[in-house]
Amino acid sequence: MPELRKDPITGRWVIIATERARRPSDFIHQAVPPAIVRICPFCYGNEQKTPPEVLAYRPGGGPNQPGWSVRVVPNKFPALGIEGELNRQGEGMYDKMNGIGAHEVIIESPDHKLTMAEMTERQIEEVLWAYRDRVNDLKKDIRLRYIVVFKNHGEMAGATLEHPHSQLIALAVIPKRAKEELDGAKLYFDFKERCVYCDILRQETSCGVRLVAETERLMVIAPWAPRFPFETWIVPKRHESHFETADNPTLQNLAWVIRTTLRKIDKVLERPAFNLIVHSAPLQDSHMAHYHWHIEVIPKLSKVAGFEWGTGFHINPTPPEEAARFLRESGLA
Amino acid sequence: MPELRKDPITGRWVIIATERARRPSDFIHQAVPPAIVRICPFCYGNEQKTPPEVLAYRPGGGPNQPGWSVRVVPNKFPALGIEGELNRQGEGMYDKMNGIGAHEVIIESPDHKLTMAEMTERQIEEVLWAYRDRVNDLKKDIRLRYIVVFKNHGEMAGATLEHPHSQLIALAVIPKRAKEELDGAKLYFDFKERCVYCDILRQETSCGVRLVAETERLMVIAPWAPRFPFETWIVPKRHESHFETADNPTLQNLAWVIRTTLRKIDKVLERPAFNLIVHSAPLQDSHMAHYHWHIEVIPKLSKVAGFEWGTGFHINPTPPEEAARFLRESGLA
Repeated sequence: MPELRKDPITGRWVIIATERARRPSDFIHQAVPPAIVRICPFCYGNEQKTPPEVLAYRPGGGPNQPGWSVRVVPNKFPALGIEGELNRQGEGMYDKMNGIGAHEVIIESPDHKLTMAEMTERQIEEVLWAYRDRVNDLKKDIRLRYIVVFKNHGEMAGATLEHPHSQLIALAVIPKRAKEELDGAKLYFDFKERCVYCDILRQETSCGVRLVAETERLMVIAPWAPRFPFETWIVPKRHESHFETADNPTLQNLAWVIRTTLRKIDKVLERPAFNLIVHSAPLQDSHMAHYHWHIEVIPKLSKVAGFEWGTGFHINPTPPEEAARFLRESGLA
Repeated sequence: MPELRKDPITGRWVIIATERARRPSDFIHQAVPPAIVRICPFCYGNEQKTPPEVLAYRPGGGPNQPGWSVRVVPNKFPALGIEGELNRQGEGMYDKMNGIGAHEVIIESPDHKLTMAEMTERQIEEVLWAYRDRVNDLKKDIRLRYIVVFKNHGEMAGATLEHPHSQLIALAVIPKRAKEELDGAKLYFDFKERCVYCDILRQETSCGVRLVAETERLMVIAPWAPRFPFETWIVPKRHESHFETADNPTLQNLAWVIRTTLRKIDKVLERPAFNLIVHSAPLQDSHMAHYHWHIEVIPKLSKVAGFEWGTGFHINPTPPEEAARFLRESGLA
């Protein structure tokens, strides 16, 4: 059972993932490029190499057989497990609890070589359905308080398998950075009686310099204070706190927007590694007037170093107005 | 002039470093290993290639000449500048201020190829003097509220020059992560009337499983909730909030401890890239009963991915008890 431990100073929780326990030699081998995997567990015909699926879209045929377009399976080496009690307890002055939660893999396509930017809108739309369906299913478990859906693309961004996939981690605690966003948005709302994200969309519309793309339902912007060069946010125009309440037309529109954004990034930055992260409100809270779900896309262009780890301050060498202009003018619509 | 911008949601400040402005092509070229620098600006004889020194230890000879053992110069491409006013202001709903501060490079040795682990204790001691002397000099400028001294070793850890060096960044704001530590330590102190770091040292002494090394004045531990595999903290036994008040015997002892810790890490993990960060109390505050300066050493062994960026949660595959045991038993004293 993985263990959650709380840093006694900052209150930051850390997952000590004993299922993946690594000895020094594992890290040394990492320096060598990973061997080519001969049998990809995410390709057609290898469905038995993963734990049994929890969701799949397939026109016909039985579960754990080929023929699916999107398939969701538990992570084979989960950072968290769904069975058991939280069992919060102390160890001397320290605090810990069991690593209760879920860790799933969304296999985005049967095509091993395809990147998300190369997929059809329809395929990306199905991936988004899978995100939504899994969140709506998992939130029935009231022990789970927060879900983060994310995608690591490319080895530099932390991907360990080439086959296109996203991940989902459901947690029994609200993580510190999510809380920071929620608290900050609440503080703004308490002062202004308006959602800070809605205000951002209004300002970015009227000024335009950080706007990357806009559709009927969504806006793509370079944020005012990006931590990373070419950091890009996708924000729905209509105020909604929870990603999982997005309706089908919104997901259809979002598929187009994600495809366009990734294609722009691929063109301008020559297919960089990236992280894509869905930011949403806590699962068991009802609609929040002060929080607004959105997606953050972070191309992996610079190394995070001592200054950033020590302070949480980031030095970004690319003003967002420049980044937005390059992406806007990349010639892809 | 670099600009500081505040994220309107989380309150996180970001440095938009216009002096280093990067276009997309700069990031693409980064993928190619950097060309071998023929003239290293940190080697003897090239003192004119850096801005004029602000500090140097040399037995004789004039400034900006060879013969020094440690030399401190302003960063040639500073993330922050010392001249001007903060000039806090709004831009619509957003907040910004001028990038006032200092960004200096501590050249640790004239020997281009030497790593800190290979230096003599005496040499490391002089580097620590330089850290202390520069902080004590800069804190006279009461606009400056926080200094972080750090070292990026190896390209994976963000180092761009091979010649051994540390950096120092002085800020006119207290960074969010530093504030998180300060606030957390204060909360603990308010409840217990004891310093949380002093309590950690007591618990780690009595239980021993996360202890890496101990000297008369310092303890080296794997922290209870490490974000990263083999994360290691060096903590002075005597309660002191500010690094810059450390006396000579403490720095002498610290030099031995840093050398031993880095040699242990080099042996167990085969010379990994690492970040070393001095955590200290805000410059303009007097002695704090609740805060305790310390050094964090983070070997660069794993990639930070979408989950970590989205949540601030870290998944660490190596329990600190394992890491401490490997380092303790590495056979170096």
